[in-house]
Amino acid sequence: MSTSRKAVIVGAGPVGSLSAIVLAKRGWSVSLFEGRPDPRLPSSKEASRLRSINLAISHRGICAINAIDPHVAKRFLEAVVPMRGRMIHHLDGKLDSQLYDRDGQCINSVDRSLLNEALLEEVIGLPNVKVFFQHKLQLVDFENKTMTLRDQSTGQDVSADFDFCIGADGAFSTVRRQMMRVVRMNYQQEYIRDEYIELKLSAGRDADGYPTFLLDPNHLHIWPRHSFMLIALPNQDKTFTCTLFAPSSELDRLSTPEEILTWFKLHFPDAVSLIGEKELLRDFTSNPRSPLICTESNPYHYLDRALLLGDAAHAMVPFYGQGLNCGLEDVRILDILLREEGVNSTTVPPGTIDDRLARALSRYSETRHEDLVAICDLAMNNYIEMRHLVTSPLFLFKKALDNLLYYLSSRRDMSFDAFNSTLSHLPYGLGEPRGWVPLYTMVTFRPDINYATAKKRAARQSGILSGMGWASIAVVASVGVWAVRAARLALLHRSQA
Amino acid sequence: MSTSRKAVIVGAGPVGSLSAIVLAKRGWSVSLFEGRPDPRLPSSKEASRLRSINLAISHRGICAINAIDPHVAKRFLEAVVPMRGRMIHHLDGKLDSQLYDRDGQCINSVDRSLLNEALLEEVIGLPNVKVFFQHKLQLVDFENKTMTLRDQSTGQDVSADFDFCIGADGAFSTVRRQMMRVVRMNYQQEYIRDEYIELKLSAGRDADGYPTFLLDPNHLHIWPRHSFMLIALPNQDKTFTCTLFAPSSELDRLSTPEEILTWFKLHFPDAVSLIGEKELLRDFTSNPRSPLICTESNPYHYLDRALLLGDAAHAMVPFYGQGLNCGLEDVRILDILLREEGVNSTTVPPGTIDDRLARALSRYSETRHEDLVAICDLAMNNYIEMRHLVTSPLFLFKKALDNLLYYLSSRRDMSFDAFNSTLSHLPYGLGEPRGWVPLYTMVTFRPDINYATAKKRAARQSGILSGMGWASIAVVASVGVWAVRAARLALLHRSQA
Repeated sequence: MSTSRKAVIVGAGPVGSLSAIVLAKRGWSVSLFEGRPDPRLPSSKEASRLRSINLAISHRGICAINAIDPHVAKRFLEAVVPMRGRMIHHLDGKLDSQLYDRDGQCINSVDRSLLNEALLEEVIGLPNVKVFFQHKLQLVDFENKTMTLRDQSTGQDVSADFDFCIGADGAFSTVRRQMMRVVRMNYQQEYIRDEYIELKLSAGRDADGYPTFLLDPNHLHIWPRHSFMLIALPNQDKTFTCTLFAPSSELDRLSTPEEILTWFKLHFPDAVSLIGEKELLRDFTSNPRSPLICTESNPYHYLDRALLLGDAAHAMVPFYGQGLNCGLEDVRILDILLREEGVNSTTVPPGTIDDRLARALSRYSETRHEDLVAICDLAMNNYIEMRHLVTSPLFLFKKALDNLLYYLSSRRDMSFDAFNSTLSHLPYGLGEPRGWVPLYTMVTFRPDINYATAKKRAARQSGILSGMGWASIAVVASVGVWAVRAARLALLHRSQA
Repeated sequence: MSTSRKAVIVGAGPVGSLSAIVLAKRGWSVSLFEGRPDPRLPSSKEASRLRSINLAISHRGICAINAIDPHVAKRFLEAVVPMRGRMIHHLDGKLDSQLYDRDGQCINSVDRSLLNEALLEEVIGLPNVKVFFQHKLQLVDFENKTMTLRDQSTGQDVSADFDFCIGADGAFSTVRRQMMRVVRMNYQQEYIRDEYIELKLSAGRDADGYPTFLLDPNHLHIWPRHSFMLIALPNQDKTFTCTLFAPSSELDRLSTPEEILTWFKLHFPDAVSLIGEKELLRDFTSNPRSPLICTESNPYHYLDRALLLGDAAHAMVPFYGQGLNCGLEDVRILDILLREEGVNSTTVPPGTIDDRLARALSRYSETRHEDLVAICDLAMNNYIEMRHLVTSPLFLFKKALDNLLYYLSSRRDMSFDAFNSTLSHLPYGLGEPRGWVPLYTMVTFRPDINYATAKKRAARQSGILSGMGWASIAVVASVGVWAVRAARLALLHRSQA
């Protein structure tokens, strides 16, 4: 027998779709199941608009797509708005631009649905992939490699056989829950005290009546207010998607229109005048308050037949903008391991284990875990930076020092194009940063450096920075003492003269 | 309307059964559902015998039962074998008895099924409780307060309405999984690297042919071997239930009968000769290797309609012998809170929330969480003590000091009987230890002290003990130095004389 093996992928978001491309290119026969309706239908667009934070895609995500399908990466880059830095909106109306990178590298704002549709259309065009919408997973029998799904349009249960099942079905993954019945999986989920609500900032009109951005489009805008914050990301239609992050207890206190407007005007006066009071009230009261969850699991695979990717394996809070980048990188690493282990798409005899696939999946769980834990932690820590530290003088001083050392250290010898051409060929986990590289740069612009490596290196660098901070304070203090003494001596001389 | 409200309890283990007694006594109409067959059937006994570690019930568990039903507590105490201390079996055959308590207080060994049956029979005798075996929970609709269960004997689905649902269905709780769909529940589960296997140590025969214990029956026997250990607990039929705890990797290396016997003879020579080689091989190869899981969740309740108790809320590793004690205490605390909030059993109008019950459950989640986290941590730490520290001289020195301070401090002014009569009336969380009380004593023999209080107090005491340890070393060293000097002086005098 040499028919091609069956893969079932649950979840047709960006991670599931990219996985489908990988397996289809490797000759598998792929079925992609999605519980929600086709996102390209107009009714779906409206529903999805209210629920997802805009995505900030960085080199990591783009390189992952590019390594698998340069055509999709190119198409995707046409739909983004590049952001060069953070724009801090102080309470007094003062603006403060903090660039992300000394070389002017950008992260890219994109509507989640645009990326999703671009990937889906690529998938639907592949001859050996079938996509099924409105199919909700009910039950997986991993021993007999078959699953039951409910077709929401008919209410009927259908079954699907598989040789390999990928769970890319998000933070509340059903595949993961089913795997936990057969795998001794360590797992944790934590809801943070904050919730988020989306608000829309419409486009303005220029003198000729054409739509125009009401804020600098090449920044990620942040209104940090210590225990809560507002952010705004640009869209190509000149609007901004704003997201308010605040503790549930803070939001609970706002119920009447007066309370809501008073609170917003107190903390975000410039944003209120841009969004408009009526629009703000409409969005705040009708849009859902969504929770923020952080999950970790281990291992991610079961024998030679199941693997969790993306949020299904590691849902993180959105404050490093790495959630999807990390999910897309998951797929790139799976692709590399399948190649390294020589996994092919021809069927294995029933009842046997495919040792190559089993080894690839087991290596995935082993090598990927440390990185996923690292980025989940970094994302959590970054919330404090975004809503609070960006306004602290000590933080800004350390950041300036960090950037100075980066500037003084040897310049990066790999261009973005070089990443693109090498990352699809190089084995996973090649990179060690040379010289001094700030944490944000390693995480965001250096996909050749693993998250765990970045985190460890940054901890060392942070120790050095603190030392240098204290040293500078000591120097400044010494200079001060010396100056006072010199002045006193001078005065003494003059009085004696 | 004043018909009595319906409670559904999922899981008819000791915690579920005790909950049924509480609610039935308060006038609720109770349905108790259990997925497994009736444990009183002979076929069930054989199956359960292989799977559960013997229970060590301490004051905490007994007081909890007694506060709810003194009759059951009395009956239960007739079935136990009291254990006064640990008996350490060293590799060279030396035995070492370490008493649990200066006042001779004991923990009690009992077969899980005996306790279970005693409680179940009490439950079945109550007029307003119905018990259903072989009913497996499928789905809970918390909004409409109804659930679907599969009757395993007929294969049919049945539904059950409820006003209040208690999940007492163990570490892999289905109620918890269903609650996680409507509650933002923090949750984590961790499998430790060790597994356990049960082995049987049969009774010996005395001169007259009567069965007799082969080891001292009033001890919990431990063979600590650093990275693994064997324990043995007595049963009333003069047998011992032995449990081997070892890392999966260690067990994986034992496959042939020779390998197994060689390994056991190397590490537990005395146990092998008591158990018998044939019996050991039979149990080791045919009994299941079971995982050890630790879970934590928060909150434990949903509005006025659902609550998790026992392992469903907090599965812990078995090394403090507190798992079931803690679960029974859960029920005692629920009982107190229901009384304190004045929850009654008459129905509330459909579609309304019972504020009293909601407040009782919310107080349960708030007050109980810190204690459950504390005991889960203590249980994990105690594994290191049991398999490793009990043989360390420094540990034994600190323990002796600990007991000395306990002896010197004011004696406990509450007898066991006093606990029994007061704990059912006093509000939860009354106790602060007076004077110096060792951690083990607080956790095991002082149900008036919360687990969290015990843990915090013990951390302070441990700091003092370490200080005193160093001080004693310093004193011993000073005395030594002084003695050497004195001796030198004496010699000097003599040589000069």
